[in-house]
Parts: sequence; structure tokens; C-alpha cells
Amino acid sequence: MTLKETYVIDTTQSKNATLRPIALENIRLTDTFWEPRRAKNRTVTLHSQYDKLEESKCMDNFRRASGRKTGIDFVGWYFADSDLYKWIEAVSASLATHPDPDLEARLEAGIDELAAAQQPDGYLNTYFMFEREKDRWTDLHVLHEIYCAGHLFQAAVMHYRATGKTQLLTVAERLADHINTRFGPEGKRGACGHPEAELALVELFRATRNETYLTLAERMIEARGQEPTAVYGSGNNKRYLQDHVPYKDLKEVTGHAVRMLYLAAGAADVTLEKDAPELRQAQDAQWENFTERRMYVTGGAGARHEGESFGADYELPSDRAYAETCAAVASVMWNQRLLLQTGDAKYADLIEHTLYNAVLPGISLSGTEYFYVNPLENDGTHRRQAWFGCACCPPNIARLLAQLPSYVASIDDEKTVWIHQFIAGEIETEQGVITVETNYPWEGAVAFTNKGTTTMHLKVRVPAWTQHAWVDHTPSGYNAVTLEPGEATRFDFPVTPLCISAHPYVSSLAGSVAVVRGPLVYCMEAVDNAEGDIRDYFLASDLLFTEESVRGLEGVVALKTKGFRYLTHPSHWLYQNTLHNGERPSLETQALTLVPYFAWANREAGRMQIWMRVS
Amino acid sequence: MTLKETYVIDTTQSKNATLRPIALENIRLTDTFWEPRRAKNRTVTLHSQYDKLEESKCMDNFRRASGRKTGIDFVGWYFADSDLYKWIEAVSASLATHPDPDLEARLEAGIDELAAAQQPDGYLNTYFMFEREKDRWTDLHVLHEIYCAGHLFQAAVMHYRATGKTQLLTVAERLADHINTRFGPEGKRGACGHPEAELALVELFRATRNETYLTLAERMIEARGQEPTAVYGSGNNKRYLQDHVPYKDLKEVTGHAVRMLYLAAGAADVTLEKDAPELRQAQDAQWENFTERRMYVTGGAGARHEGESFGADYELPSDRAYAETCAAVASVMWNQRLLLQTGDAKYADLIEHTLYNAVLPGISLSGTEYFYVNPLENDGTHRRQAWFGCACCPPNIARLLAQLPSYVASIDDEKTVWIHQFIAGEIETEQGVITVETNYPWEGAVAFTNKGTTTMHLKVRVPAWTQHAWVDHTPSGYNAVTLEPGEATRFDFPVTPLCISAHPYVSSLAGSVAVVRGPLVYCMEAVDNAEGDIRDYFLASDLLFTEESVRGLEGVVALKTKGFRYLTHPSHWLYQNTLHNGERPSLETQALTLVPYFAWANREAGRMQIWMRVS
Repeated sequence: MTLKETYVIDTTQSKNATLRPIALENIRLTDTFWEPRRAKNRTVTLHSQYDKLEESKCMDNFRRASGRKTGIDFVGWYFADSDLYKWIEAVSASLATHPDPDLEARLEAGIDELAAAQQPDGYLNTYFMFEREKDRWTDLHVLHEIYCAGHLFQAAVMHYRATGKTQLLTVAERLADHINTRFGPEGKRGACGHPEAELALVELFRATRNETYLTLAERMIEARGQEPTAVYGSGNNKRYLQDHVPYKDLKEVTGHAVRMLYLAAGAADVTLEKDAPELRQAQDAQWENFTERRMYVTGGAGARHEGESFGADYELPSDRAYAETCAAVASVMWNQRLLLQTGDAKYADLIEHTLYNAVLPGISLSGTEYFYVNPLENDGTHRRQAWFGCACCPPNIARLLAQLPSYVASIDDEKTVWIHQFIAGEIETEQGVITVETNYPWEGAVAFTNKGTTTMHLKVRVPAWTQHAWVDHTPSGYNAVTLEPGEATRFDFPVTPLCISAHPYVSSLAGSVAVVRGPLVYCMEAVDNAEGDIRDYFLASDLLFTEESVRGLEGVVALKTKGFRYLTHPSHWLYQNTLHNGERPSLETQALTLVPYFAWANREAGRMQIWMRVS
Repeated sequence: MTLKETYVIDTTQSKNATLRPIALENIRLTDTFWEPRRAKNRTVTLHSQYDKLEESKCMDNFRRASGRKTGIDFVGWYFADSDLYKWIEAVSASLATHPDPDLEARLEAGIDELAAAQQPDGYLNTYFMFEREKDRWTDLHVLHEIYCAGHLFQAAVMHYRATGKTQLLTVAERLADHINTRFGPEGKRGACGHPEAELALVELFRATRNETYLTLAERMIEARGQEPTAVYGSGNNKRYLQDHVPYKDLKEVTGHAVRMLYLAAGAADVTLEKDAPELRQAQDAQWENFTERRMYVTGGAGARHEGESFGADYELPSDRAYAETCAAVASVMWNQRLLLQTGDAKYADLIEHTLYNAVLPGISLSGTEYFYVNPLENDGTHRRQAWFGCACCPPNIARLLAQLPSYVASIDDEKTVWIHQFIAGEIETEQGVITVETNYPWEGAVAFTNKGTTTMHLKVRVPAWTQHAWVDHTPSGYNAVTLEPGEATRFDFPVTPLCISAHPYVSSLAGSVAVVRGPLVYCMEAVDNAEGDIRDYFLASDLLFTEESVRGLEGVVALKTKGFRYLTHPSHWLYQNTLHNGERPSLETQALTLVPYFAWANREAGRMQIWMRVS
């Protein structure tokens, strides 16, 4: 191992970065909320995911391409290669903080398989082999060819940084160079129907300092929305994949949510490295449109099942929410890049909110089952699954958990340590070590102690949720603190449960409220509210909550409050005169129990809802 | 012309019919609401639709198949033939009441073109010709082959009844016989991915008394939901096309809405002719599920754009409503069959409601532009179009308008005339003539006069909406009236505007109300409410309406009431603490104008919503 600086987003030399990264190895988490999940990720999830890569024949696709296995067909989606790449990225990041010889051996074996599949000219994609070799680069619109390459680039950079080994980085460079001959300045304009490679190419540039890759990323962003299209191929749905207008003119989040947010992350990476005011302005408009018009209360993105896409402004159905887990991961990735560029706390606020309420629901408490779609209201039939035919989400959660320390803190050029997320552990910089003590998110107290021998400067995020500035971007900002050696400081953010309501233009949420406590969104599950149907429950308007524990969710703070319930079932009428008094159902008071949304669907199946009526 | 009994659904000999039809010729409408629309249908729409059949190359597809045109390709969807068939059905029905030599000439020319395309063995489908001949009957799941035949059967029966000519009926019989050799008792089980032929085959049986066709219809209904599937072919989405369970076990409305409702109409036709208690029970369950869980307040069917399908119980989003115009037509067709069987007013109530609020919005006041999708809330970008690539809806509205008299009244075996729908005109039976005078739906007064020379017995529907029994099926029933020669009776149904609310389980409508007046659902359009954004408007809780006229909608009763409006625009926050007082927007009183939903989008484009918040 030659490096000790495993960065996830390496802004150490980025021209427009306000914040610089702290290596994964130097942010050591010891908390009881995230670190047990990360431990499960290392010891259970990453191993079981490799087994899935074998079962789903993803690995055999590489063996077929390399000739190590013959007489078999390609199996799975045309983007199946990316499953392995995301797994490599996740394992590499995990090894940076937690060496594991068994996992490392599987990692190296996997890398050996994929390296063997690379073609002499640098090409690598197991779908486009043999009978499909002729189809290479013919269908950028649909077939995810550059997308898969992007995930390889990310995996390679993470592997190089975490292990110091260059084998995979070389594979990535050869493939990137191959793509550059086609779509670089000497080639034609081309961009992928599924953005992702843009952000990956910028990271490959950061790892290699080869400007070619940065230029290629820029070209791919600029290629979108042109006539004739650079996203050529067999499809024609331009808005779906953000090819309907040039990126600089894209002032909303639209189309397929994951594509939109990966593209925005890629544009953010470009603006970290280069002055591109039009790209920056477009991102500001997109972010405003997302957070003010098109974001679920969970931070989730994507209102429509059709096209896994964003809807119109204020179109945010609870039951038919798509809110793909991958879109939440992509939102975190985009916001982290905006945070590193600006140091604006609103991005860290949204990362926190999205991690707890949109990413985390995507994985079971057991660490082995996943949600792809995350409705905010469900009849109990929606359950997590062990894997998917389209398996994008599981390794996406795994890599994010493995990279979680990178979201906790950054450092600026004055050596001030910026604390973004509150997770107990220690943060080491050249100036020394700071310990973080907290029982977040269950409690709002956070203590920082300077364990080093020199004065340390901190900037500590004051969460927006402490100021009634809920989810949105009223300045909450960072609080400057100076700690002498041995000195400690303590913040106490009040995690009082409160109700929130949606903008009146969200017509589907008129008359409904949601309950939050600290950074967590709560929901009502049938398993805790077994009297009748939870759709018959109302919150009282004078809300008082007590904190409780509930069966089957150890360590989770549940909330109990008094409300009402229809004693008689409401009328069978779908519509009735509001003045009709003949069949008014009677109400009785009813205790209501709420649990954090991330924990839902981990016990007996039953109805769940986040938004509730108020009496 | 040899016949004077142009029936749409001929239950004159149906074993299980409570009600018998009155011929189109014998219900002469003279009202100022529907008859001008029907006149426009005859003089404008049906002519312009034929032009579209030429422009869209639907007619050339027949000429290609017959060899009258060569060197051209098939153009359009694989179900394009059905556009001509529905047009023929519409024109035939129209000629029954309003002879028109020009239209009849076009009709006969069209029939000549299609008859020439019939193959020696009786086969007729212009898609499956030449290079695709080998594909006949290979893909029932997707390719609508039997569906197209069904529309031909309906067209042929209507043409025969209206004109007495047998040419098209013979074409239909030859095709039906051809299908019977494949899928009749001597053939294999088969049913179409898109139900429609079932109801058509029963009508073909009624016109020819050939039991083969009734048996074939039965077999096609029973074939669904079997293993292995009888709806074989290239698709695999069984629920989408009601092939996931046997029809007798289908206790909900699910999947593609038009398919579901045509299938139900076909099953209703079978139960009119034969004792089939399991089919009847399934229909009762489907009807209850539809009207109590899955129907829009407009009567519209289909909550999801994905699959043009029904959603889950209580899933009824306003903005993303699909509510296809064809599904509304199909609902009317299904309910009419249930009405003829039972004489239960609830079906006539729903027909009335659906005609005014779900079918009629599908066509512009000009009679030349159409909605395929009918949202209940829209930002003003959804506008009617002159035609569609998938042109199912325009001729479906046209045939329903042409057949409208058949929905007005029926007769029972005691010669009592049942009045279902209130439209001014005269109804002639063997007993004599009854005149109907009314300004319905604008006014609720309806007068009936016996113009004949013998005592007449009537049963007059008392609309459910007069009894707070809104849309649903609390018995409203028929009021028996006996009229001596020259005697008149008058009903006065109070068309007082009132507010209705949705079942509390429709979470997207919590806190919202809709306004109705008589049979009409009202909406708010930006063009009449130009101060600010109509999403800032609230109804007052103490509702008082005045009746008004509005610019651009002559003859329409608009409603005006006092409400409130946010003076300052609401916060830019998407979600906020409900206790947050910093940014409470101020309200001012505001006059609100509402117009009937059917009339929306006929003036300047702008936002529209049916459901409104109440202060």
C-alpha cells in the first residue's frame, strides 16, 4: 500500500473548491447508528453481493468475454457489467478503512476476470462481444455503453487510491483512451443515454492528472441537447435522458431521475475544476427546482413510475412515488460536489436528510434486502428483495455506506475542519485529532474534543431543521469554533418532534401533515397500530409526543401521540355530499405510534403512511 | 330500407333482459344540449373523420390488401382497421335517424373497399397481408387481430339494422365463421389481448340468430385466465389484459381500463342471453370495486398512465389521471347492458354521470378536436387534438353520439316505457307517442305528455344526485307514472349546486371538495379566474353560489361563489413546520367562477382543477 489518502472526491487540487477532502482512513467512525450498518455492509452485504454477481452470471459474462468460459451466452441487462464495477468501488472503499484479506482476495480475483476481458484496443464491455461486436458505439441512446465505462472508472480510481495498485487504473485508462479516440476532440460528439461517465471521467482526471479525461467529460456534457443529437441510437425520448435542451439551458430536474442527478453531479465536477458559469447557473436552477418543487419530504427523487422519472412541479404522489434508491444516492453525490465547491450548509443539510430518509430505507435492517422503489404510502405489499433483475440499487447503497466517512468532514485551505454530518468517532488531520461524541440522530447533543497538541479550528453545521427551516435552504450555516488542545465544545440541537406540511400547490397533500424528529421523517405502520385500519387514524391538532420503544426495532426512538380513529368504518361511498349527515362515522380517541421511515417494512407486512390527516 | 328497428343493443329476445330496446328512429331528440352536438357530429365530425381515415392511410391499407393499390406499405398501428369500422358504425347509426345521401355514399364506398379486401376464406385484416400473412393468429396477446374483427361485427350489425343492406353483414359473418373454425368448439381456445369481440359476437348473434357466435363469445370469455394461456403471443403482462385469473374470479377492475370495461360489457351481453350466475356475480363485484374504489368523480376510469390502467383502491390522482375517453365510452356500454338486464336505476345514474362528465369532455365544443386523456387538474398544457396516432377515441365518441337515443328510454314486457336519460324530444312506441320537455342539464324540470290515444305507463328515473346519493348506488329508482291520452306530468329535480368530498381513504383528496350541480361536475379554469394563480384560491366553507354566464361558453350555466385567495404568494418552501409563523401568507376574499368540466379547455389555455381546497 503506497497511499494513505483514499479520497472519494479528490478536490485537493480543484480550482473552484472551497473544501478539500479528508481521507477515508482519517475519519474513523465508532457510532452505534451508522458503524454497525457499515460493519454489516463489510461482513455480510459485500460478500452476499459477490455471490449475487456469480448467481446472476455477471461474472460469467466477463469470463465469456475473456474466453475463460466458452459455450455460454451473455446473461442479464446490457448494463450488467456495472454491477461488478460498483461492487469493486464499494469493496475498495471498505478496505481502505477495514482491511479484510478474504474480501480483498475476492476483489483481486474479480479485477483479474475483468482485466482479462479487456480487448487489445482497450475496449471493455461484455455485452458487445462476438456477435454484437459490430454494434459497439452504434446505440448510445439506449445501450449504456459509456455508462458502464463510467462505473469502471470510478471503481478503478477507488481501487487505486485504497490499495495503491495500478492494475485496474490501467484498465480504466486504456478504456478511457479508447473512448477518447472516438468521442474526444479528434472524434465525433457522443454522450451516453445514461449519464454517469461524466463524473467518473473527472475523477479519473483527478487520479491521473490526464487532462484528456476532464476535456472528455466536458464534451459529453456539452454534447447533450444538440441537433443532430449526440446521444444517437435506437431511442427517441430526449427529455427522458436530458437530451432535449443543452445542459446549460436545463433549468429544472426532469426525465429519468437517476440520469438527471448523475448528470448534474458530473456537471458539478466539471465546475469544481473549471470556470463554467453557465453550468453553475443551470445547477443552481436545477437544485432550486428540485428542492422547491419536485422533491419528496424524504429527499426522494422521482414522482413517476413511467420512465422512473421526475414529474411536474408539485406532482408528488405518496402511493405511486418512485423515489428510486439510486436516485437518492445520486442526489447525495451531487450535493456533496456542490458542498465542496461552495461550503454552503444547505447542501450538507440535504445530504443528511437524504441519507437518513431516502437512502437508508433502501436497505433492510438485516443488510441483505433492498428497495428499488420507495413509496411514501403503501398497503404492505411492497417488500424489500434480496436482488433485482436490474440490480443497480444494492451495490449503490453498499458503496455509499463504505464511503460514508467522506461525507462527515472536510478541510479548507486555512486548515479549518468543517463538520457536515454528526457521527461519533474521530477525525484526524495534519493539525491533530478531534473526537466526536454523539448519539445522533436519536439525540441532538454533539461534543467535539481537541485531542491534539495544537489549536484546532472547526466549523460545525447547525442543521436547518433546528430553525424551522425545514429541508429547504434558509441559511443555517456553519458555526465557527476554536478549540485549544484538550478543550471540548458541545452543541445541543433540540430533537423535538414536530409536524410539517407541504406547499399548498402540492394538491395531493392538502390537509395532511408529516411528523419529523431531528433529521428523521416518521411514518405510521400497521404493525404498531393494530386497531382497525391506519387510514382511519387522525392526528390531533394539539400534538404532544412521547418517546417510546417498539417491539422489533431495537434502539429506535418511536413516537407515541394521541389522535383519533373512526370507530365505525367510513361510508362505502367513494364520493358524497359534504352536507350529508346520514352516515357520519363516529370517532374515538386513539393512541398512535410512529417509527422512523427508514425502519419501515422490517417487521410484519402491513400498511404504512408518512402523510397523515389532522383532525 | 327494409327495417325500421335500428337497435343498438337488441334485447328483444334476450332471455334475461328486464328491458327491451326502442329503435333509434323512434326516439327523436330535439333538445338544445345534445341534439346540436349530434348535428355537429353528423355534419362536421363524421365527414372530417373520414378525411382522417384517408389521411392516416387507413383506407389505403384496405386498398393495398384488396390489390386496388399496389406499391404501398401498410401504415399505422396494427389495429388501424378498427378506425374505419367504428366510423362505419357511427355513420350507420346516424343515417338511421338522419338520412344523408353524401354520407351514405361515402359509407357505401368505404364498405366496398373493405369488402374487396376480404380473403376467399373469410379472413380480413389489412395488417396481416402479404409478408405478414404467415403471422395470422400467432400473436393474440399483442396484435389485436380479434379486436379488429369485433369492431367489424359491430359495424356490420349497425349497418344492416340501419340500412337493411346485407353486404357488410355477410362480410362479418364470413369473418366470424373463419374465426370460429380456429377458436370455436372444433378449434383451440383463443382470446384477444384486447377484449371487444365478445360483445360484438353477441350482437352478431342477435342480428343473425346464429348460436355459433354466442358460443364463440362465451368461449372467449372463459378462455381468459387459464393455464396455458389462451391469449398467447409475444407479450407476458397478464394482469394488463385481464388474463391473470378466470373472468368469474375477477372481483375488481384492473389492468388496461378500456380492455377491462369492454370485457365486462361482453360478459354482460352473455349474461343477457344465458344463465351464467358466476359471470353475473363477478360483474357485480367489479362494478362495486369500480364505483366504490377506483372511479374518478367524473366517472372516468384509469388512474395510471403506465398501461393506461386502473390503479389500486383509492388511487385516484387528479393531475396524472388517465381517464381515457374510450374507457368512459366503454363504461357507458357496460352499464347500459347491466341496465337492460336489471332495470336498476344505479346503472342509468352512472351512464348519465359518465356521459356528461367523462365522455363529453373528450370532444371540443367545435366537434373536431379530442382528448384521449382526461386529467382532473392540469396546468393548461393539455389541449385537445384533431387526431391521434392511436385514433381510438374520436370515432368512439362519434358512434356514441350517433347512438345516443338508445340510451334515453327502453320498454318492458308490460309495455311500460322506462325513461333513463332526460333529453327533450319524443319517444314513439306501439302504444303511442310521449313528448319530453326539459332544459336538462341546466334545469331539473322535465315534463312528459301522452300525445297518443291510449293510456301510457312510464317509469321515470329519479336521479341519484337528487337524494344526496351522489354517483353511488343508494336506491333512487324509477317512479311509476300513468298518463291518459293528452295528460302531462312534470318532475322538478332540484339542480342546486353542492359540494362533495371523497372517501377519506383517497389520501390525495384529503381536505378537498368538488362542486356539482345536477348531473354536472364543475371545475375552475384560469380563464375565468384571472387574478393570480388558481392554486391560491380556496372555497369558503359557507358556500353560496349564484348562476352566471361566462364569456366564450354560450348557453352554459357557470357558478360564482365567494372564496379566498392568497394575496401574497405562498412561501417558496416545499415543506415547512406547521407551527412556523414567520411567513404566513395573507388572504383576501375572492370571487370564484366555476364552469362545467366538460366545457374546459375550449377557450384560452390555462390551469384547471376540479378538486378545490376549502378554507
